[in-house]
Amino acid sequence: MPGHVRLGIDVGGTKILGVALPADGAGSAEVLAEHELPTRYGPAVLDAIDEAVGALRAALPEGSVVRGIGVGMPGLVSRTGVLRYGPNLPGVGDLDVASWLVERHGYPVAVDNDGNCAAWAEVGCGAAAGSAHALFIGLGTGISCGMVVEGQRVRGVHGFAGEPGHMTLLPGGPACACGRRGCWEALASGSALARQAQAAAASGSSQLAALAGGAPDAVRGEHVTAAVRAGDATAIGVADAFAEWVGMGVANLVHVLDPEAVVIGGSVVADEAVWIPRIVAAYDRHVLAGSLRPSTTVSGARLGRRAGAIGAALLIDGRHRTD
Amino acid sequence: MPGHVRLGIDVGGTKILGVALPADGAGSAEVLAEHELPTRYGPAVLDAIDEAVGALRAALPEGSVVRGIGVGMPGLVSRTGVLRYGPNLPGVGDLDVASWLVERHGYPVAVDNDGNCAAWAEVGCGAAAGSAHALFIGLGTGISCGMVVEGQRVRGVHGFAGEPGHMTLLPGGPACACGRRGCWEALASGSALARQAQAAAASGSSQLAALAGGAPDAVRGEHVTAAVRAGDATAIGVADAFAEWVGMGVANLVHVLDPEAVVIGGSVVADEAVWIPRIVAAYDRHVLAGSLRPSTTVSGARLGRRAGAIGAALLIDGRHRTD
Repeated sequence: MPGHVRLGIDVGGTKILGVALPADGAGSAEVLAEHELPTRYGPAVLDAIDEAVGALRAALPEGSVVRGIGVGMPGLVSRTGVLRYGPNLPGVGDLDVASWLVERHGYPVAVDNDGNCAAWAEVGCGAAAGSAHALFIGLGTGISCGMVVEGQRVRGVHGFAGEPGHMTLLPGGPACACGRRGCWEALASGSALARQAQAAAASGSSQLAALAGGAPDAVRGEHVTAAVRAGDATAIGVADAFAEWVGMGVANLVHVLDPEAVVIGGSVVADEAVWIPRIVAAYDRHVLAGSLRPSTTVSGARLGRRAGAIGAALLIDGRHRTD
Repeated sequence: MPGHVRLGIDVGGTKILGVALPADGAGSAEVLAEHELPTRYGPAVLDAIDEAVGALRAALPEGSVVRGIGVGMPGLVSRTGVLRYGPNLPGVGDLDVASWLVERHGYPVAVDNDGNCAAWAEVGCGAAAGSAHALFIGLGTGISCGMVVEGQRVRGVHGFAGEPGHMTLLPGGPACACGRRGCWEALASGSALARQAQAAAASGSSQLAALAGGAPDAVRGEHVTAAVRAGDATAIGVADAFAEWVGMGVANLVHVLDPEAVVIGGSVVADEAVWIPRIVAAYDRHVLAGSLRPSTTVSGARLGRRAGAIGAALLIDGRHRTD
């Protein structure tokens, strides 16, 4: 229906991105409006979501009809839309995002995990379009993940499926935001990359610290990407070691799920030319019987930083199956 | 139909178990006949499967009609019934088990991974009966696994899903039969337990070597179980450390799939009173947000050593969905 839209809000560890999509655009990623703002922590995250909704509505043409709001949250989201656990969103306990938005706006609301949303977008209209066996891995502040298995979006019995970031991959390894040690997220997320790069910048003769304004402690993932592009040997070492952890975890998931497509997205790998080939090479070293998996591909995301928000909007029509 | 039966053959790394079930016994595990023999390696495994089929037919009442044969194989089984990779079945390359049996017997044949078969049995008529989100982990020579996700049996795009035994859990750790290092199977299978116990028996003052006839190199998992029951401190240490690896891997899978039921079976845990409480305690230490997963249970298998064979027989009626 012309003028009918669905809103999608992707809440990340550092920023919130909202988009408006046509309500009838099945399989399309046409973005009618977009708004970004910094994440607020604690219960104020609800006001920030609300601000995104308001900004999107203001940006749409007069007469547009909002059909519903989908929200992706970084953490464990129950099947009823309650954020139960969000280690990258400090100060939030149980947060009933769905009920709050319904009460405030009266629209239909659907809330899911951010990785699920991104996976749904990439399978709906992105890099894994139409696949019945696909996996999305988002490397941002943490590691998000969404899965389509045998043609169905996987939620799990409580809605908590898709948290491979908390697979133990190095017993006794670096501390994770969840309080445990050696989780994949403590080795292969954007936060982990920043820590690894800071350690290298403090000890090495690299450009990393200079790119961060001279402060080794301020080095972040984007500085690694830039220094790799400039041929900095220390940064290349950091990137290769980081990609090894990513590839090892991806191989673990491929052994469990045997997907057709693994899509790697998130802010860390925004520069795909730097990151995706390294991750694919590491995955190839770790996957068992890779030659027997001719149709399994590991590739970058097609929808980029908008994947989570687009997938959140796609929640609204209730099409939770791809078959 | 009375007299109509389906045969299930479970091929393991050391033994082959065949059962005959009524063809119409949906949801029941009534075993009409049973036959066990040692595994033969290389292509001779086909003759051993055939011997099991022959012995089952001979044991059935006159006039019984075989409706089909299901086979569980230890390794990667394609969706068309070809064993593509079986590290615990030396000397076998690509083995078209399904075509060979169809040609030889003319019955309908279905071949799947052994862990998938056991999972299907435990979900069909065992410890996870009726669950739409269940995971079976079989601790035998290797680690087998089968999964029901959102009500569907998971095969993966090539049929290779359910191989968490080859998750890397300890980078650079013990060598695995697959040629890689630090796989879960190299830490938490029956073979791994035997190696861990042998090392402890050689150095300790325990009963382990005595139970194995005085030879530390002959210690196997069953000797650990017996020594734990006898209160042997070295064996208890081995069992606790082993259970820790099992629980860590189970927690990894729960983070990915959020199942309702995790069923632990296989020869290693045949003495459930020794093993299951240890594994559950280790799982509880490793799982993230365990208190938010009220309905997730980790328990022993109900169908015991027959689970794989029963599940193989259940393949025959083609009911590959639980919903």
